[in-house]
Amino acid sequence: MPADVQGAARIMAKQAFVFCGGAIVEQVFARVDPSVRVELVAGEAERVERGRLLVRIAGNARALLAGERVALNLLGRACAVATLTRAHVDAAGPHLRVVDTRKTMPGLRAIDRYAVRCGGGHNHRNDLGAGVLIKENHIRAAGSVGAAVRAAKQHAPHTLRIECEVTNHAELREAMAAGADAVLLDNMSDDELREAVAIADGKLILEVSGGVTLERLPRLASIGVHLASVGALTHSAPSVDMSMLFDV
Amino acid sequence: MPADVQGAARIMAKQAFVFCGGAIVEQVFARVDPSVRVELVAGEAERVERGRLLVRIAGNARALLAGERVALNLLGRACAVATLTRAHVDAAGPHLRVVDTRKTMPGLRAIDRYAVRCGGGHNHRNDLGAGVLIKENHIRAAGSVGAAVRAAKQHAPHTLRIECEVTNHAELREAMAAGADAVLLDNMSDDELREAVAIADGKLILEVSGGVTLERLPRLASIGVHLASVGALTHSAPSVDMSMLFDV
Amino acid sequence: MPADVQGAARIMAKQAFVFCGGAIVEQVFARVDPSVRVELVAGEAERVERGRLLVRIAGNARALLAGERVALNLLGRACAVATLTRAHVDAAGPHLRVVDTRKTMPGLRAIDRYAVRCGGGHNHRNDLGAGVLIKENHIRAAGSVGAAVRAAKQHAPHTLRIECEVTNHAELREAMAAGADAVLLDNMSDDELREAVAIADGKLILEVSGGVTLERLPRLASIGVHLASVGALTHSAPSVDMSMLFDV
Amino acid sequence: MPADVQGAARIMAKQAFVFCGGAIVEQVFARVDPSVRVELVAGEAERVERGRLLVRIAGNARALLAGERVALNLLGRACAVATLTRAHVDAAGPHLRVVDTRKTMPGLRAIDRYAVRCGGGHNHRNDLGAGVLIKENHIRAAGSVGAAVRAAKQHAPHTLRIECEVTNHAELREAMAAGADAVLLDNMSDDELREAVAIADGKLILEVSGGVTLERLPRLASIGVHLASVGALTHSAPSVDMSMLFDV
Amino acid sequence: MPADVQGAARIMAKQAFVFCGGAIVEQVFARVDPSVRVELVAGEAERVERGRLLVRIAGNARALLAGERVALNLLGRACAVATLTRAHVDAAGPHLRVVDTRKTMPGLRAIDRYAVRCGGGHNHRNDLGAGVLIKENHIRAAGSVGAAVRAAKQHAPHTLRIECEVTNHAELREAMAAGADAVLLDNMSDDELREAVAIADGKLILEVSGGVTLERLPRLASIGVHLASVGALTHSAPSVDMSMLFDV
Amino acid sequence: MPADVQGAARIMAKQAFVFCGGAIVEQVFARVDPSVRVELVAGEAERVERGRLLVRIAGNARALLAGERVALNLLGRACAVATLTRAHVDAAGPHLRVVDTRKTMPGLRAIDRYAVRCGGGHNHRNDLGAGVLIKENHIRAAGSVGAAVRAAKQHAPHTLRIECEVTNHAELREAMAAGADAVLLDNMSDDELREAVAIADGKLILEVSGGVTLERLPRLASIGVHLASVGALTHSAPSVDMSMLFDV
Repeated sequence: MPADVQGAARIMAKQAFVFCGGAIVEQVFARVDPSVRVELVAGEAERVERGRLLVRIAGNARALLAGERVALNLLGRACAVATLTRAHVDAAGPHLRVVDTRKTMPGLRAIDRYAVRCGGGHNHRNDLGAGVLIKENHIRAAGSVGAAVRAAKQHAPHTLRIECEVTNHAELREAMAAGADAVLLDNMSDDELREAVAIADGKLILEVSGGVTLERLPRLASIGVHLASVGALTHSAPSVDMSMLFDV
Repeated sequence: MPADVQGAARIMAKQAFVFCGGAIVEQVFARVDPSVRVELVAGEAERVERGRLLVRIAGNARALLAGERVALNLLGRACAVATLTRAHVDAAGPHLRVVDTRKTMPGLRAIDRYAVRCGGGHNHRNDLGAGVLIKENHIRAAGSVGAAVRAAKQHAPHTLRIECEVTNHAELREAMAAGADAVLLDNMSDDELREAVAIADGKLILEVSGGVTLERLPRLASIGVHLASVGALTHSAPSVDMSMLFDV
Repeated sequence: MPADVQGAARIMAKQAFVFCGGAIVEQVFARVDPSVRVELVAGEAERVERGRLLVRIAGNARALLAGERVALNLLGRACAVATLTRAHVDAAGPHLRVVDTRKTMPGLRAIDRYAVRCGGGHNHRNDLGAGVLIKENHIRAAGSVGAAVRAAKQHAPHTLRIECEVTNHAELREAMAAGADAVLLDNMSDDELREAVAIADGKLILEVSGGVTLERLPRLASIGVHLASVGALTHSAPSVDMSMLFDV
Repeated sequence: MPADVQGAARIMAKQAFVFCGGAIVEQVFARVDPSVRVELVAGEAERVERGRLLVRIAGNARALLAGERVALNLLGRACAVATLTRAHVDAAGPHLRVVDTRKTMPGLRAIDRYAVRCGGGHNHRNDLGAGVLIKENHIRAAGSVGAAVRAAKQHAPHTLRIECEVTNHAELREAMAAGADAVLLDNMSDDELREAVAIADGKLILEVSGGVTLERLPRLASIGVHLASVGALTHSAPSVDMSMLFDV
Repeated sequence: MPADVQGAARIMAKQAFVFCGGAIVEQVFARVDPSVRVELVAGEAERVERGRLLVRIAGNARALLAGERVALNLLGRACAVATLTRAHVDAAGPHLRVVDTRKTMPGLRAIDRYAVRCGGGHNHRNDLGAGVLIKENHIRAAGSVGAAVRAAKQHAPHTLRIECEVTNHAELREAMAAGADAVLLDNMSDDELREAVAIADGKLILEVSGGVTLERLPRLASIGVHLASVGALTHSAPSVDMSMLFDV
Repeated sequence: MPADVQGAARIMAKQAFVFCGGAIVEQVFARVDPSVRVELVAGEAERVERGRLLVRIAGNARALLAGERVALNLLGRACAVATLTRAHVDAAGPHLRVVDTRKTMPGLRAIDRYAVRCGGGHNHRNDLGAGVLIKENHIRAAGSVGAAVRAAKQHAPHTLRIECEVTNHAELREAMAAGADAVLLDNMSDDELREAVAIADGKLILEVSGGVTLERLPRLASIGVHLASVGALTHSAPSVDMSMLFDV
């Protein structure tokens, strides 16, 4: 490939999905060659059909080839996560937040988080410093649910809520009594969740974790919990099909 | 200095202050030469007197000289911040949290934050992702206090509280109505703060900012606000005197 | 969690899959805390059953928690790729190489490549410098298949084979005449591939690309091509289920 | 804050001080967003009054907010050091150089050095390679003042002067006899310094270190030493008050 | 040197050599100051005479001084390697490839490789992943030449040729029988090479290594081997004389 | 090569040269695999004969192979520079310092500087901050030799000497009058240098630059200048021959 050939290409959808990540394409080509021009045609969070023109790219042909694979691999990842998230959010309806987990692809957390939001989901805390989540091991170290919650309230910045993982109703009551702001209800059945909602009585944020499927989401919404966290959004999003075609 | 001479040295306090940052000394010398031995004699957060032995260091003499200035400059910074914080925390008493601000020394934020905690203070949010603080410019962009608070509640992760800066009682009421979790009362007089406490009626976390001095802290505590943020802890801590003496 | 608590944990398989990536677990914990001990119980490339103990980890409890998520996310990725590759290799049999593509997860290429090998697959060239693959755009720039192959032979290091993408039998003949060492037969039907095998007459390495599925692999093997490249190995490997359990 | 809002702001002095570090503001915003415009109104090393407009900034509002705190923290540091240095230089008068020490803020040495110069001071050697300063430990290792000076003259590049720390007049004479170019007179009284000036007889550069205060500087100037080094310039500069105000 | 002085300079050849590396000059000054203008007058791979104008540079005078030494040191290195390579390639004639070795200057491998190509030479594999070269130690580990070649064919990507180092005709025959694609004939005499050419009978690529001098190259070409590798191209290229002159 | 094979190797001199850089070998293998053992047999700055054992290395065979080329390339560079320097220092005798220049290999300056010292030479200033050297362009910018020297004396740290390049005796007198500490006599003939020595009369350090060859050095020593700077030490040192042999 001679160094000075100019070219143009289009990224096209080869199936229906939720598009997002146009800025990734801009960034990839800006690093390869700042003179490459990228025109984003599809909008962020847009549901696209098979055959939709997504992005136009023009510039030095070597630069287009150099950036192609990285851009497509990253863009495809973002769209895959957004598409799977969208399906879950649609199933959950307007009153139940779908949130991601820490099971993101190493190195791609920022992209995964962004794609979840484009799919209509919400992010859980972005890193260990952006929220206090007391888990089983912390409870064991502190001695009890109550002791763990009280210690967290004593030390944590006032800008963070205190959330505590609980596995039964006794622990839920103990967390409430100690002043927790939220609880993560771990692997509970629908009936257990219904009783948890009654116990909480609107005084706590309730998050469901474990066994959350597309099918179960409408039921969870009707039970009245506030959030459902879904690891699959980022650890099992199936690829979406797109390609970059060079104009003849 | 020949390459293989061994030596020993002691870091001594030359005035009274709150000691902290022993791990800095360990880290500095570990990078210069992992075979240097560092023994921490004073405890973290300990109030030391003039003449107190703080740290013993032994090993290759070149390594001791190479690490001396970096270790002392960083350790001195940490102790200075802890000492000034301690004075404020003592003045505030047990019911008013003293918190730091973003006015930390660039590059040394983690050390500054840690020193504040060693002095008995609390940290404000560590970075922009570890808390939602709606300031004047956000309010202007959103159109009103209420609109800004509602937008934040809609988008922020549930692990974060929503705090809003307010400058008068009307804004305080508007923030409460919109569901804010905390307010930053900016540059209010003692009387204005008393009325704010009455309005809040225990439903909100109240933080005071602006004009917080050592003298005013006991009064703020009696008024019943929850936190007082003090920029001086990290932007104006006067140096403390210590030195590293080599054993003859 | 107090700083000096010791703990132990086990990583367990929660479904059947092909295990690999034990060194990832060692590396992750070595960076978090070099004193953590990691014992690899399952062997690399071993087919494990649900309930199999994979890895034992012991050491400082904070370090175990800090490394847990990164270790599991990376290990899970490796096992997912190895498992999907294994299925394809089993379907292809001993005479048809299954090879990966450049559609790897950005940042994780080395892990993806390794996992493919653990699943019994082979890697395509690892980067653009580790092989010469003449694609449609190069051919267009050079003017013809023959011109592109001849230019590559003139300039490429003698350590690399010259492979050329061809889409029909005329191009295959042209590549052969110009001295190509291998061809990538793009999106050909089984009948077209049979004729390509006849034309090549054992003088060229034949790689099939496009439309390669688990079901088709045995047929491709019987046709007599040498390699089949499969993007799904790394862009669509479904997650495998495992967890890290702390000993009580 | 919407992504495309434009804004403008001014950095204002809230007390009198010596301004410097305008380039820091330019650099900070250039990294946040190269399209932000920074206009430096106050000049480097200018003595500003309360209320003086220092810098105008205009551009994307998010970028202004993102850069505000880093810019102010760094600029405030520079002005604080310049202001304290200016006071010392004014006290010392035109014939006595005021120089800084290695007690700079870790990570900010270049800014500290620059600010000292803006305050009218001079820098001591910038790093261990930019000057030869023989200290007590080197003397002990070499065996005597004379042996240490002679070894340094033998090995040091000819571009560097040889300076030796001395604590009494005998050591001063020994350093002179060995060919030192400069001496650092450590913790000497005014009377001892007067005699040192007589002994040196114009053949050596004389630097005073230890116990140098604003009050003592005029006396040191009249005694006839050439330099006075002051650690407080960089380890105890009190903050100066400035703020960044957004235009409505 | 005041900060705002503009200047211009020319890089001139002070002896005859093969020029290359103009892009290095562009890159160096682009990093120092993007507003410096660099005009490349001599062409890549051009044979220049003493007194030839090579490059014109214009811009901020401080930037010209700052970049001068780095640019000249790197450019001089590139031209030195290209010049020595050119002499070898001319001696070898059109039918014998001159290739470099791994004896490149650490940190400058990319420049060294490029300069070899500008001198008309070819590169050997660029890194350990861009070719399979079985050396004495691998043979010893595998047990025999044949076993080593067979293992490599089994595991290596199909994009790489298998080259094996051999020291006598028996090993050459063994490598051929096992299916090697190329052999490196190590330290053989002209007579031994003639017999190796006869044995290989056109079925293998033959590379000569060891004792390759300018004088011997025409003889090697007439013997009929395909490549000669020469460590001196990059480990002993004598400097070429050039200088950067500032316009008055 | 199996992952767990152990091996041993020796680095041997294949010609006479000045050895230095043993620590490079230690560092290279420490990065490849900290368990590799390196025993330095030859001493730093030792003159070695052909066949001398220089270094023994033992450990994992893959690690030995991985580090071999980098270690030899760097070690060979260091020995080449030390050897060429030694020849110049021997020619110059005890009263004339041989110093290097800024024409070092990019990226390898620290090694080049060290090797010069091992060859008995001295380093010129290590970077632009470790000495003041006023060159033609600075003089032009300042207006005259005298003005340039006076400005440097005003601003430079007292730890640095002021050296000025001069091209004739008038400039030499002007530099002396302005208080320069040293001059670089650029491209002067032996007769011109003799007169310069007479003019300087022991009051200045005299450095010769340009046209310094092995043959001329004894003459320069007898003329009485103090230093001779030689670019060839680092830009044209011919390689020395050594190899790493694996024990059978």
